[in-house]
Amino acid sequence: MCAIVGVINSNEASKTAYYGLFSMQHRGQESSGISVSYNHHITTHKAQGLVTDVFSREKIASLKGNIAIGHNRYSTAGNSSKNDAQPVFANYDLGEISIVHNGNLINKNSVRQELIKEGAIFQSNMDTENILHLIARSKKETLKERIVDALNDIVGAYCLLIMGRSKIFAIRDKYGIRPLSIGRLKDAGYIIASETCAFDLVGAEFIRDVKPGEMIIFEEGKTEYTSIQLFEDIDPRICAFEYVYFARPDSTVEGKNVYNVRKELGRVLAKKSKFEADLVIPVPDSGVPAALGYSQESGIPFEMAIVRNHYVGRTFIEPTQEMRNLKVKLKLNPMEELLKDKRIVVIDDSIVRGTTSKKIIELLKHAGAKEIHIKIAAPEIKFPDLYGIDTPTTKELISANMSKDEVCKYIGADSLEFLEIDELVNAMGSERKYSLVSFDGNYFVK
Amino acid sequence: MCAIVGVINSNEASKTAYYGLFSMQHRGQESSGISVSYNHHITTHKAQGLVTDVFSREKIASLKGNIAIGHNRYSTAGNSSKNDAQPVFANYDLGEISIVHNGNLINKNSVRQELIKEGAIFQSNMDTENILHLIARSKKETLKERIVDALNDIVGAYCLLIMGRSKIFAIRDKYGIRPLSIGRLKDAGYIIASETCAFDLVGAEFIRDVKPGEMIIFEEGKTEYTSIQLFEDIDPRICAFEYVYFARPDSTVEGKNVYNVRKELGRVLAKKSKFEADLVIPVPDSGVPAALGYSQESGIPFEMAIVRNHYVGRTFIEPTQEMRNLKVKLKLNPMEELLKDKRIVVIDDSIVRGTTSKKIIELLKHAGAKEIHIKIAAPEIKFPDLYGIDTPTTKELISANMSKDEVCKYIGADSLEFLEIDELVNAMGSERKYSLVSFDGNYFVK
Amino acid sequence: MCAIVGVINSNEASKTAYYGLFSMQHRGQESSGISVSYNHHITTHKAQGLVTDVFSREKIASLKGNIAIGHNRYSTAGNSSKNDAQPVFANYDLGEISIVHNGNLINKNSVRQELIKEGAIFQSNMDTENILHLIARSKKETLKERIVDALNDIVGAYCLLIMGRSKIFAIRDKYGIRPLSIGRLKDAGYIIASETCAFDLVGAEFIRDVKPGEMIIFEEGKTEYTSIQLFEDIDPRICAFEYVYFARPDSTVEGKNVYNVRKELGRVLAKKSKFEADLVIPVPDSGVPAALGYSQESGIPFEMAIVRNHYVGRTFIEPTQEMRNLKVKLKLNPMEELLKDKRIVVIDDSIVRGTTSKKIIELLKHAGAKEIHIKIAAPEIKFPDLYGIDTPTTKELISANMSKDEVCKYIGADSLEFLEIDELVNAMGSERKYSLVSFDGNYFVK
Amino acid sequence: MCAIVGVINSNEASKTAYYGLFSMQHRGQESSGISVSYNHHITTHKAQGLVTDVFSREKIASLKGNIAIGHNRYSTAGNSSKNDAQPVFANYDLGEISIVHNGNLINKNSVRQELIKEGAIFQSNMDTENILHLIARSKKETLKERIVDALNDIVGAYCLLIMGRSKIFAIRDKYGIRPLSIGRLKDAGYIIASETCAFDLVGAEFIRDVKPGEMIIFEEGKTEYTSIQLFEDIDPRICAFEYVYFARPDSTVEGKNVYNVRKELGRVLAKKSKFEADLVIPVPDSGVPAALGYSQESGIPFEMAIVRNHYVGRTFIEPTQEMRNLKVKLKLNPMEELLKDKRIVVIDDSIVRGTTSKKIIELLKHAGAKEIHIKIAAPEIKFPDLYGIDTPTTKELISANMSKDEVCKYIGADSLEFLEIDELVNAMGSERKYSLVSFDGNYFVK
Repeated sequence: MCAIVGVINSNEASKTAYYGLFSMQHRGQESSGISVSYNHHITTHKAQGLVTDVFSREKIASLKGNIAIGHNRYSTAGNSSKNDAQPVFANYDLGEISIVHNGNLINKNSVRQELIKEGAIFQSNMDTENILHLIARSKKETLKERIVDALNDIVGAYCLLIMGRSKIFAIRDKYGIRPLSIGRLKDAGYIIASETCAFDLVGAEFIRDVKPGEMIIFEEGKTEYTSIQLFEDIDPRICAFEYVYFARPDSTVEGKNVYNVRKELGRVLAKKSKFEADLVIPVPDSGVPAALGYSQESGIPFEMAIVRNHYVGRTFIEPTQEMRNLKVKLKLNPMEELLKDKRIVVIDDSIVRGTTSKKIIELLKHAGAKEIHIKIAAPEIKFPDLYGIDTPTTKELISANMSKDEVCKYIGADSLEFLEIDELVNAMGSERKYSLVSFDGNYFVK
Repeated sequence: MCAIVGVINSNEASKTAYYGLFSMQHRGQESSGISVSYNHHITTHKAQGLVTDVFSREKIASLKGNIAIGHNRYSTAGNSSKNDAQPVFANYDLGEISIVHNGNLINKNSVRQELIKEGAIFQSNMDTENILHLIARSKKETLKERIVDALNDIVGAYCLLIMGRSKIFAIRDKYGIRPLSIGRLKDAGYIIASETCAFDLVGAEFIRDVKPGEMIIFEEGKTEYTSIQLFEDIDPRICAFEYVYFARPDSTVEGKNVYNVRKELGRVLAKKSKFEADLVIPVPDSGVPAALGYSQESGIPFEMAIVRNHYVGRTFIEPTQEMRNLKVKLKLNPMEELLKDKRIVVIDDSIVRGTTSKKIIELLKHAGAKEIHIKIAAPEIKFPDLYGIDTPTTKELISANMSKDEVCKYIGADSLEFLEIDELVNAMGSERKYSLVSFDGNYFVK
Repeated sequence: MCAIVGVINSNEASKTAYYGLFSMQHRGQESSGISVSYNHHITTHKAQGLVTDVFSREKIASLKGNIAIGHNRYSTAGNSSKNDAQPVFANYDLGEISIVHNGNLINKNSVRQELIKEGAIFQSNMDTENILHLIARSKKETLKERIVDALNDIVGAYCLLIMGRSKIFAIRDKYGIRPLSIGRLKDAGYIIASETCAFDLVGAEFIRDVKPGEMIIFEEGKTEYTSIQLFEDIDPRICAFEYVYFARPDSTVEGKNVYNVRKELGRVLAKKSKFEADLVIPVPDSGVPAALGYSQESGIPFEMAIVRNHYVGRTFIEPTQEMRNLKVKLKLNPMEELLKDKRIVVIDDSIVRGTTSKKIIELLKHAGAKEIHIKIAAPEIKFPDLYGIDTPTTKELISANMSKDEVCKYIGADSLEFLEIDELVNAMGSERKYSLVSFDGNYFVK
Repeated sequence: MCAIVGVINSNEASKTAYYGLFSMQHRGQESSGISVSYNHHITTHKAQGLVTDVFSREKIASLKGNIAIGHNRYSTAGNSSKNDAQPVFANYDLGEISIVHNGNLINKNSVRQELIKEGAIFQSNMDTENILHLIARSKKETLKERIVDALNDIVGAYCLLIMGRSKIFAIRDKYGIRPLSIGRLKDAGYIIASETCAFDLVGAEFIRDVKPGEMIIFEEGKTEYTSIQLFEDIDPRICAFEYVYFARPDSTVEGKNVYNVRKELGRVLAKKSKFEADLVIPVPDSGVPAALGYSQESGIPFEMAIVRNHYVGRTFIEPTQEMRNLKVKLKLNPMEELLKDKRIVVIDDSIVRGTTSKKIIELLKHAGAKEIHIKIAAPEIKFPDLYGIDTPTTKELISANMSKDEVCKYIGADSLEFLEIDELVNAMGSERKYSLVSFDGNYFVK
């Protein structure tokens, strides 16, 4: 996961990119960066931290130019480093270039080894550097041709924004796994963003999504953009996780509003089995729409019985002797007044390791709930995702190692229910295909 | 508004106070501070910023001691300054002392003038300094007697925690306007806090509220506390605004759960008038419980159709040409997919100046809502509060200057409804009295 | 030690004060602060750190007004705290006031106890707060009279700058222990500073010193100042340490250039005893002028054989196994090429604890010096200073506990020589008296 | 200019490198960085600022390993950027590598263009990246062979430290333009540094200089090092500027102590022409030894009549109306008491643009000097240096555009004298050759 944004033909490009990144902060909190092209030179500012930490008003004002790209990086534990912030800038054969990337290249290691064997040097751990090298090494004459050349060598999930001195190339892989949409600014400029919620904040109008396998070229000073279909064998499969928990509920992903899809997932859960309970409660915030859908379908009253504290930020976590489950409690507090002696249905978006669910159930029991029935608005996660989502290894995925009943017992619930894969697909719309690797293990990218 | 916390007989007093303040961050984001008493000396750390900005793990570890008090300061525009952080510390006749204070002393100017005339010096704008001076100038022999002396000279809304070398005095004014509750820590220590949500996070058990006009004395090493009734003529009137929007929904204020009171306010709104609409939506987060109550009572479906971005933090606000209503949009984004061509009921907690409501309605119209009916889960605010809430002057209060219909027209709604004062009182419980000054102009404190 | 500065009738008062403090950074590196009076209100900014750390261009620009006072605080180990930065500001009976203070009040504890008994509260450890309280408690009608009143109650070494809304009062104690001089700015304004080197930097012209026991009143908009002699029984005794090592060599203290006095001290050392040696070297920087004087008088060649590193700043000091004497070596590096097999005379300004001298001698021996003769351009320090200099207790003063020969042996020198007190006095000028407490134990202040 | 340091076989390698960089802070204040190799991985920390700003105790403690290299970067106006800090790290064919570099590659642009044509990408403006690319692209099997390969393609002045997982390669170009010396640590480790003053601070013993055209290989765990002579056609020419003003006076450059050479330069100046004057004064700090030599030779008394303020740091420079020559005055203050009505000889190390000399002379005149005779302890600078020194273009070099008499008139001196080139060479030792490009325009590097 990550967020990318591009702005062109706006005399406040860096500011528009800034607010675009701000509205997509949920897609990445580790680092943030913006490149602008001005006076034939590209300037980049990037650093670790939230968008509002990395960029002051003065910094944005200093990033002049009509063309900008930006990036929010997701915090991936372990192999990330201070250098792994984007955009990635380079001087190369055709001048200056800057790239932002959302996704994951599955052949990154082999490409990197190949490049390294040919004498390339790498200054970070990011697969984005691969693309830069491939473009720089292509023998083609124009940047456009070189990008085409480079993309022939990479395999995986990617949305790319590539900025030269006066152009932005917006590219989506042939499966369209990650989303990328185009909006029009009021002053004839364009904004390209991972999620449409960015358009709402900056006052842009949604035009259309970049299509799977498509490259769109925006040029400074031109009101029209050009489209090139890069691949013939496209096989569109938007990632189901965008609907399940990545995207903001107010975003429209590939034509479907996320909030409505989540509500529908809740309705499907309610239809699966008749069930007697006193309350339906969501694990906030991502479980809210599904819990509403469940409540509307089942008639069981909906309550926000778990209160979420949104100030978490950089709190250190070091419990005193008497504090239990501190990490979960810093965020979530169930209310005894609502839960005591009640039979409750709890709606969550997924179970990954099972540890958080276990702790939430402990807190709900402590608050006096009589019965706790967990309903997950997604299927069991049995396989690691390789297409840009930070899921743990198979060993750590609880559903890869336990049956539904064992998981139920482990987390301490009275019952546990998941969606079936086809139920998920039906709720999202069975007229098209999806990336469902975490659920079905079908690693379709070749 | 502000948050105060005290901890005694805990060998991790500063850490417990830290998490207590963290859970009450919503009551004040301007500055934060903690004093500890250790080895017969009081040490204080305070600074501007959120709790998590002001205190690092190392800073908390350096604040040793079994006894601590802490404070979050509410951001009051205009007359606040860098020096106006609490606790306020002083050396005085009986040794060292530190004080935190939630509320507002209505005779602060006259007391301050009196003290200044007698030769006192003031190093901040806080009325808390008055109390320190009065204690220091009292001729009584013990701190307890001096506090009693000092309190005889001050009039207003106050919850105080006063820390000497080895004691904490917890005091509430005779009207009990601001809340203050006592919890028991697992290791026989106590925590005193403005809101009970602090107890949940630190694993403490609610014991009871400090009573109006009561002073409770906690002593280091003693498992029992002592209570003294300071005033005979008590007239308990908890502030209605705690229920309306100050307190966290998971707090219990004077025996009543805030979430449940807010839901009841929504039910009452629904009962007031039959109404045809397609959706009930809250202005998040504070409008959520009332909207749920309204929906349950009226049968009109509830939707979270306005999405709130919780990352707002320190974003600078400087719109581009094409951005309108940026300040509101940074926080709130209405979803066209849910609102288009719908008749909607919007539940909010209050209308103060009317400017925010006006902008929200613009955004809702832009999202295609056909009819917009605003229901406020509180009466019209016609008078400035003087008891610790930062309401603007009469001139700026829209309902002090316009009729309900004029306000409706000004904000651009299709209809507008408030609660009557007695409806509010009934929902909170008519068996007791409330501070309702903003609504009825009854400035009862003498 | 400390530095104070005042500026009046300059439309860039804070900037002039800033550069004044910058030029006097050697007198205090712990904290820095400036108060300005503008629009009938006093604003203060102060923080820990060097002048250039505490004040940015923007901060200075924000401190508007034609009148300013400033302070650099000396780093005194142990009992200093974050709160002990100056200026000290207060609201009091006559309005707003801000004070800076260089010196030490010897009756500070008794005055503080007296004030506390009367109900005063203290928010720092600084004796400057005493003066504020005394002024606030005086029953006189004007600030001028109140200051006179207050000064009657304090005893000690002090130079004060007291700023009201539109005036600066510059005051020196009746012994004139600490220096304070007046300079005229080109635009008819004035600058008052601890040292005349401040005048050189800001382009001011030296007018005269504030006299012992004198109060000078500068008023906004007035080109003339008023002088009041506060005490009849003046007994002028400028502190000898200003000449020995406090003041910058380019300052003129009470009419005598510091560099020239130090050179003369070196000459006197040379005249004391004929001596055969190959080189005279200073411990830089303060020993340089005396070493030059010694060289000129004795004919023994002067060399800068110890190189000083001026970047020391905030280096942490944690030697590796192979590093010895790191703390001294970070600053001072003797050159083997110059010292090997040489008989050297080393000129230093004083010996306090003896530990630094011991380490320097180790380094000189390691560099191959054949004979090391230490000459101190001051008498033996046998008594703690109480008049504003941070000397340690008698127990730690090596010359209070050892004879000259014992000290010589302890530090490992081949010979050791001090000045006699009368030699010091003659070099500074025997026509007047000096504060010599560290040398003669005559605590003359009453 | 820059400083480089390498440490191997020390269990406190990063700390030793830190203190080495600290002692060479004068060679570069813009940025600082250290790489360590630990557990088969290289970690780098670098940032803008002084050594003591960039590295805290904690940061150094976190840089574990027995092998480290470090760098201080000189502030070169204009084309430097935030990214231009060293060491430069990369992953490449043989694993991980980190490089530090002092000097300037004169064919850097052609090499860079060549590399770029072949598809290389550059992420900074530093020529150090060239070397990394050349090593990465070499087809040889070992790092040693690849370095040899790479060095065949570069031309210029360079001292390099190249760190692989377990080795440090120390390399000096065949002219030996920049210095590089080897020291032995007490625990059988080695330190390699630009200047020998680094050895003094860390307690290392000087072994020998790296020879021109030599590569020395240090290996983890081995007490012996290996030497390889890379070039046959060596032509040793240490840069004369190291003696003139770069190096610290306590360093020994190519066997000669810098202080002594500078003193000799002063003596030569004195011998050139008999001269009547009252005082010889240096422009501190670099002019001090030459002024001492001049004084000893001529018999004219030496005085430190210009006082230098060492706190300059990051002061902003924005004079008030009455401040003139602020930039020079922040550093230098001439003393009227010493200069008034005197005929003075001023010794400085060089005249580059002439603007600083002009301002110093204004200040000396303002201080009352009767005659001002400028003696420069170096020849006229008529040509830009290309071998690692930041001299301006020919257009800005005053001596490239004016005769000595014109310069004298421009700066306002009563007389002006430079050294002849052969006088400089004789003082440094005529038995060897020097890089003298700034003086003679002989760009010998091919």
